[in-house]
Amino acid sequence: MSRKAENISIVFIGAGNLATQMALAFLKQEGIDITQIYSRTEKSAKELADKCKCAYTNDILDIRNDADYYIYAVKDDALGELIDNISIDTGIHAHTAGSVPMRIFEKKRTNHGVFYPLQTFSKNKSVRFDNIPIFMEANSDEALRNLTHLAQKISSKVTTCNSTQRQAIHLAAVFCCNFTNHLFNIADNILKSNELPFEYLLPLIQETVDKLQTLSPTDAQTGPAVRYDKNVISKHLKALENMPNEQTIYELLSKNIHKTNKLTN
Amino acid sequence: MSRKAENISIVFIGAGNLATQMALAFLKQEGIDITQIYSRTEKSAKELADKCKCAYTNDILDIRNDADYYIYAVKDDALGELIDNISIDTGIHAHTAGSVPMRIFEKKRTNHGVFYPLQTFSKNKSVRFDNIPIFMEANSDEALRNLTHLAQKISSKVTTCNSTQRQAIHLAAVFCCNFTNHLFNIADNILKSNELPFEYLLPLIQETVDKLQTLSPTDAQTGPAVRYDKNVISKHLKALENMPNEQTIYELLSKNIHKTNKLTN
Repeated sequence: MSRKAENISIVFIGAGNLATQMALAFLKQEGIDITQIYSRTEKSAKELADKCKCAYTNDILDIRNDADYYIYAVKDDALGELIDNISIDTGIHAHTAGSVPMRIFEKKRTNHGVFYPLQTFSKNKSVRFDNIPIFMEANSDEALRNLTHLAQKISSKVTTCNSTQRQAIHLAAVFCCNFTNHLFNIADNILKSNELPFEYLLPLIQETVDKLQTLSPTDAQTGPAVRYDKNVISKHLKALENMPNEQTIYELLSKNIHKTNKLTN
Repeated sequence: MSRKAENISIVFIGAGNLATQMALAFLKQEGIDITQIYSRTEKSAKELADKCKCAYTNDILDIRNDADYYIYAVKDDALGELIDNISIDTGIHAHTAGSVPMRIFEKKRTNHGVFYPLQTFSKNKSVRFDNIPIFMEANSDEALRNLTHLAQKISSKVTTCNSTQRQAIHLAAVFCCNFTNHLFNIADNILKSNELPFEYLLPLIQETVDKLQTLSPTDAQTGPAVRYDKNVISKHLKALENMPNEQTIYELLSKNIHKTNKLTN
């Protein structure tokens, strides 16, 4: 690819769902060049590099040392070792993990920070970045200014937070994305065993989310657990007899809804 | 109000959120008259009757006996006694409860059935009915035909199911509406204790739901629990030390996600 000298250059460390979606969002912007993709797996590196029309490598020693930004989008477990093994000490290095403190970079002398987009990324489902909150943290004013500038290229919701707050955001996200999706999965299984399609639930699910535009989750709470309606709850627990884990989840969530509701009313 | 002889007439038994939203949906249709509202609480009966410009009563013996339909939209607990005490044996009587079998009407000699709209109804939040699935059941072909005709006036998604299926739908709805909203509430509390606004989570929540248009909940599952990432999970459990119930919920859901994911991959 042709590269303009005044353009910002980015090397991606990682080629999974998050790296792919971020790279595709940056590709659409003027003045940004993705110059290389590193992944432990050559196939993944090549796949994303082909999309970005750039170089790729699966050898840490081949990572180019002239980039403005190094964005680490890899599994949390792999992050520490990678940071230790990448000896490049120029450019700004930033990881994208919700639950990893910025101090994982502390041995590095370079400018560094965190660039955490709050979203769920799946294969085969592209997302628009402009609406996604990106949480920034950096070890210097200069790094923070530059990382913020970069983030604002793809999102209108860029904000700073510290590592403790970012961990809280990640934890909250697990509840309202990963766990919520699991409840949808349980609902799907209940319907399947009664020969009913999941599609029936979609308007209800959308309304449950739409309510959050005007009501707090506390005010929006409905259902038999609010008043602990024993009649309905015991019928439901009986219907879950063959799904003991889901039965426990049902009982635990119902009790907690009742308790929370008593405390707030 | 002026009433045309050929119009369909409805009496509502109950004046809560569901009765109100249904009555307002029917009011917008041609050829339907709401002729009376009954509620145990005179104030509630009057409030809805004012909106419907119709009569109201809080005396069971005053319920008029010339309506085509009697729609019972009251709490499950109150339903049996009300049905026993309303001696009118003309018209079609239908309740709207997910978990109450149709046989609750069995002592009645009239045509009867169930008219169950699958949605969450809150005060101060109006909903559009046209998209809401309504599940019908009736004790005769004639009652089913008439109830279906009535339901189709307000919704394009009218379908029949038996009492067992309807209970499964209600149970699934508890998981993906009431319980989901409770997870949003927990997420809100986690953010609040870190001085962060709930609004940050809205794009993530919307994307979690949007995914269901193209992916099954099983395929859409992401997060640390899928591979049981002990590193992240133990950090999160530690962060929940002061919220022991939520900590238990976190652990239980994570284990169940991991187990479900192992079974399906």
